Amino acid sequence: MADKAAPDSSRRSERSRRAILDAALELLGELGYPRLTIEAIAARAGVGKQTIYRWWPSKAAVLLDAFTDRGASPKGAEAPEGVGQRAEAALPDTGDLEADLKLVLRAAVDQMNAPAYDLPARALTAEGLVNPELGAHFVAQVLEPPLRQFAERLRAAQDAGQVARDIDPRVAVELVCGPLTHRWLLRTLPLTHEYADAVVETALRGILNR
Amino acid sequence: MADKAAPDSSRRSERSRRAILDAALELLGELGYPRLTIEAIAARAGVGKQTIYRWWPSKAAVLLDAFTDRGASPKGAEAPEGVGQRAEAALPDTGDLEADLKLVLRAAVDQMNAPAYDLPARALTAEGLVNPELGAHFVAQVLEPPLRQFAERLRAAQDAGQVARDIDPRVAVELVCGPLTHRWLLRTLPLTHEYADAVVETALRGILNR
Repeated sequence: MADKAAPDSSRRSERSRRAILDAALELLGELGYPRLTIEAIAARAGVGKQTIYRWWPSKAAVLLDAFTDRGASPKGAEAPEGVGQRAEAALPDTGDLEADLKLVLRAAVDQMNAPAYDLPARALTAEGLVNPELGAHFVAQVLEPPLRQFAERLRAAQDAGQVARDIDPRVAVELVCGPLTHRWLLRTLPLTHEYADAVVETALRGILNR
Repeated sequence: MADKAAPDSSRRSERSRRAILDAALELLGELGYPRLTIEAIAARAGVGKQTIYRWWPSKAAVLLDAFTDRGASPKGAEAPEGVGQRAEAALPDTGDLEADLKLVLRAAVDQMNAPAYDLPARALTAEGLVNPELGAHFVAQVLEPPLRQFAERLRAAQDAGQVARDIDPRVAVELVCGPLTHRWLLRTLPLTHEYADAVVETALRGILNR
């Protein structure tokens, strides 16, 4: 109804909204998250600060919308496949669990190493750590959907007799995703395809000698 | 030599330094990290802002010193044993790898859930995600020492024939520490002793049905 009543105003709003989201992602790449400000976003988008504050409470909230609007990929960038892209799609199921997991985790590594994903996802994770409300939105919108898809894939493998009966699929998912996230966020050691493969192999076969 | 030349000045400096570090940890608990400022720390410590800036470039740098000075435990708080405390000590080695790992990971869970550890460690992790220099210091000073001790324990278990020959101890360490860090930082699901036990059991035996 509102759209019918004021189509021009609605189109202008959508143009402003897109300009703000684009500006937020551009400036994140140029300034880094600590130096990103609502003022800078407003100036780049060609809108007043108050326009931004009317729609979003903080720079983190702008960034979260910019990130999720793009399917985790900024304008013009072809995002590598990976965790952020799989919110809607089921994981591959060729019947070869190890191959499927390696494919998915290597794609996640590519994504985490790509600035188009790394910069906003890292900034939003950092903000979420000390801003529980934003953190809860980020986890619910960005992280949980692929984690649930992952658990579904492992449950299917459990039904097929490939995964042990007494395994909790959610724990198993975190066993492979946790180590990758750890290296990605904390930059302890290089995040490579070889690491993704080693995590999958170790998680599938276990650490014990038997 | 400087200490001998000006013992009173040196003692005054040490008193100011302690007052600043104490103030930083107190105010972190009261204000939260986003609202913590050098101004507030200076006022609480009874020193001028310039005194702080003479020694530290940022609030994060003050907090890192405060955190590492206390052995990861603020004034007056008896820190639960855990990752942050084990920088110097070897992990238990009773010969029962599963029991030893559960003991250590349950202690890490207690520590991550304790505000005296959680607040500064979470704030420093968040800052480190978007501030690579601070992040590198945090990882080198706080995270890597216990990860290396952990890897040593697994290497000993490998020498004793309990851990498979072809396992990379570092990957195995991240397989158990990564999931705990994931739940702690992202608050996806409750971080409990039961979860620590499930991670250890799944990592040791593997996900596969065999």
